Amino acid sequence: MLPYKSLIQVDRKAPVALYIQVCNRFIALITDGTLRPSDLLPSSRILAELIGINRHTVRLAYDELISQGWAESVERKGIFVLSRLPDLSRTKLPETNKNDGPKEAFVWTNKFEKAIPSENFQKTGLAIDDGLPDVRLAPVDLLMREYRSISRKFYGRNFLKYGSARGSEHLRVSICNYLSNTRGLVVSPENILITKGSQMGIYLAAQLLLNPTDTIAVGVSNYGSADDTFRHAGANLLRIPIDNNGMDVDHLEAILQHKKIKAVYIIPHHHCPTTVTMNVERRLKLLSLAKEYRFAIVEDDYDFDFHYDNKPYLPLASIDHNQNVIYIGSITKTFAPALRIGFMVGPSVFVEAASSLRQLIDRQGDTLLEEAFAALFDNGEMERHFRKSLTIYKQRRNQFCQVLKTDFKDTIEFKMPEGGLAVWSIFDKNIDLIKMSKDASKKGLYIGNGSFSQNESFFTNALRMGFASLNENEMVKALGILKQVVH
Amino acid sequence: MLPYKSLIQVDRKAPVALYIQVCNRFIALITDGTLRPSDLLPSSRILAELIGINRHTVRLAYDELISQGWAESVERKGIFVLSRLPDLSRTKLPETNKNDGPKEAFVWTNKFEKAIPSENFQKTGLAIDDGLPDVRLAPVDLLMREYRSISRKFYGRNFLKYGSARGSEHLRVSICNYLSNTRGLVVSPENILITKGSQMGIYLAAQLLLNPTDTIAVGVSNYGSADDTFRHAGANLLRIPIDNNGMDVDHLEAILQHKKIKAVYIIPHHHCPTTVTMNVERRLKLLSLAKEYRFAIVEDDYDFDFHYDNKPYLPLASIDHNQNVIYIGSITKTFAPALRIGFMVGPSVFVEAASSLRQLIDRQGDTLLEEAFAALFDNGEMERHFRKSLTIYKQRRNQFCQVLKTDFKDTIEFKMPEGGLAVWSIFDKNIDLIKMSKDASKKGLYIGNGSFSQNESFFTNALRMGFASLNENEMVKALGILKQVVH
Repeated sequence: MLPYKSLIQVDRKAPVALYIQVCNRFIALITDGTLRPSDLLPSSRILAELIGINRHTVRLAYDELISQGWAESVERKGIFVLSRLPDLSRTKLPETNKNDGPKEAFVWTNKFEKAIPSENFQKTGLAIDDGLPDVRLAPVDLLMREYRSISRKFYGRNFLKYGSARGSEHLRVSICNYLSNTRGLVVSPENILITKGSQMGIYLAAQLLLNPTDTIAVGVSNYGSADDTFRHAGANLLRIPIDNNGMDVDHLEAILQHKKIKAVYIIPHHHCPTTVTMNVERRLKLLSLAKEYRFAIVEDDYDFDFHYDNKPYLPLASIDHNQNVIYIGSITKTFAPALRIGFMVGPSVFVEAASSLRQLIDRQGDTLLEEAFAALFDNGEMERHFRKSLTIYKQRRNQFCQVLKTDFKDTIEFKMPEGGLAVWSIFDKNIDLIKMSKDASKKGLYIGNGSFSQNESFFTNALRMGFASLNENEMVKALGILKQVVH
Repeated sequence: MLPYKSLIQVDRKAPVALYIQVCNRFIALITDGTLRPSDLLPSSRILAELIGINRHTVRLAYDELISQGWAESVERKGIFVLSRLPDLSRTKLPETNKNDGPKEAFVWTNKFEKAIPSENFQKTGLAIDDGLPDVRLAPVDLLMREYRSISRKFYGRNFLKYGSARGSEHLRVSICNYLSNTRGLVVSPENILITKGSQMGIYLAAQLLLNPTDTIAVGVSNYGSADDTFRHAGANLLRIPIDNNGMDVDHLEAILQHKKIKAVYIIPHHHCPTTVTMNVERRLKLLSLAKEYRFAIVEDDYDFDFHYDNKPYLPLASIDHNQNVIYIGSITKTFAPALRIGFMVGPSVFVEAASSLRQLIDRQGDTLLEEAFAALFDNGEMERHFRKSLTIYKQRRNQFCQVLKTDFKDTIEFKMPEGGLAVWSIFDKNIDLIKMSKDASKKGLYIGNGSFSQNESFFTNALRMGFASLNENEMVKALGILKQVVH
């Protein structure tokens, strides 16, 4: 007989019933080949004694084994491992560390051997981040109030049932009003898909617009996650220079005369990483090129709500008469990164296709969150929050730039950004950003090393330095540490 | 001069400042070609009079137009539309209904011209659905309590910041414990990715495992959304028969001898649509085939938690010694469809790649929801909810089947399901399900017409009839209506 005393061990403190533990141990013995088809199991009396549990518990375990099809009872003979099971003893693995096991048990091509970088994830300690909002400003109490009110209000709890892949009808109407009020962008709910943040908008647009070997035009410097998303769709990136007025559309025009491109991706407000804003002439020129050459413009305007010195520019989507623009925005960035709500605006046929794809991806968003955000829009709380944050961030931008100007005069070159949450800071060429990042880390400050902004054709000794998530004291402390490590 | 009185109209009740409204109207006039480059704008005095607003407001509007780069001020002459702008008058569209506009302003291939069906979305009235949970049982108050507690507890509100694409570490540990306790599936958090429901698990697995023209084996009858997801990845579906013991793995084996397949998709508990459960012999045989032919098994076990007559069978993932299984589960189905939480379990390299892809799709999940679910697991509330629902659903299943047996003896053939939330009901061939569905609808009952369960190689005059979302009264009412329309 097998040494059941050591093979069948139970844990009386575990939340799993003892008989299930015994049953599962037997299944493990069968599947690892220790017990073979037609093997006799010990009688319940013997096993109960051996492992020190009640005989009734063993019987329950055997019943369970039988009902699940692992064992069979033969009258007056006992309980046997099911004779019809395949003999698994040959598949028993040699005793090895689990990590040494076969890495490629099945055949697949890992398209992500190089992990997607995630440097701009928010850090929990003192950090000069990539340009992220201060989540401490988010009116979480108001959100909670809406949650409570929704969970009480709805008869039959329809907000917990399956809903539309396009997102809550209520929120789509609220977003229509918000877009019209803030951006002069007049659309109807059928032009809107609620996404999980702007990243999902980029992904959906990439998957729908781009086939392998298609070309998409992007900035020489560009938001790295967008580049990754287009590459994942199989597209080739065509890099167009970015200057102080945004993407150089004349350069683009010259290329269009001999090359077919499917789409252009732009960040017209506070381009990532360099924070430049595209001027009106270029916006209009790009729209007319799109019409002539029949490409789509993917307009990523995630930063629209943060513009300090004048009103933000109207999106290309608002001045597009030809339906060439897929407009992507985010509330996530404005409220809190972990609460994923964004939107895609486009021609209704395109939005319909995006909704179908979205249904395959994750079916739908979180209705409770969508309804709560709709309520915050409707009762004006969202706008109050935007206004309040804008005032605070403007102050922080000014303070941050002031310190850069005085304390980093010889080391950092920058232009005060008109909007957005980061300063594009070009460091003196003698400063090694990788070393700087490490040195800062030792002193308790997270700061990037610039690699997130770089790509195969853009290398500047520069960093996006986010000011928005630092209050006055933190800013003083953070820039104090930075000063120590760069001098 | 243009008829500004009609062209520039403002709405004093709108939440947008008047000067912005005026500014935006001018932008519209410029972009639609009504105003051309170098055109003179009316003086602020004249415009103020014409449209009946304060002269100061007009000046603010002009300042805004200038600062955004639409206009320029020429000393002693006035304000002009910027001369450098491209002339847009030629792009002005003829006056047409917006819907008649160009359908294909840009070149793209709509892969979703046939919209993805969504028949199994939950209905809000009286409904015999596809097998959905009763959201009224979901302990929303407890969820709210956790939300409140989390939003108070976390210093610096880290739960609102960007987090990991794999999901909350806390929830991944809780899921490990849950999987070990309920399924004898022993894995570590690095084997787990938190998804937005099981659909995201299917999508990620499909995208990673399947390249265009690859083959995946699925049931002759199968969950339609999974089929759609595999087809979207470009794969060919190989249909394997399903009988009362699940997928016919001998049939599969015969094909494997001459055909390469990349993956097999199975729903081992309560197969969708037919509710059959795969027996142990076939589970073991499939595992050994996977090892021999090096394919991945995508095990969709969304329904594990609802098994009534004995303990549920151990998943293939729990008895797999060779890391061939990608295991997909869902809490969404157990709690509430609109709260999207599921998980994928697999070899750590695969889960890492899935996390990278997920990062491109929507970056991460909703941390607040993930933390709240982790707390509900840890304090035992989730298990209490599972147990409570299980008892209620078992009762409802019994009652539902009892009525089918007595009142639909001659019209519906069925086998009481061991688990899951639906009865696979084969209707008498003389009953036209499309007509039945319409007739029921007229009497206030939603019931499907069977098309969601059908595919190009499976047509049975049958329906999944969900019993779980109906309480006793509703069930009597719903089946009463159904009886009227089928007799």
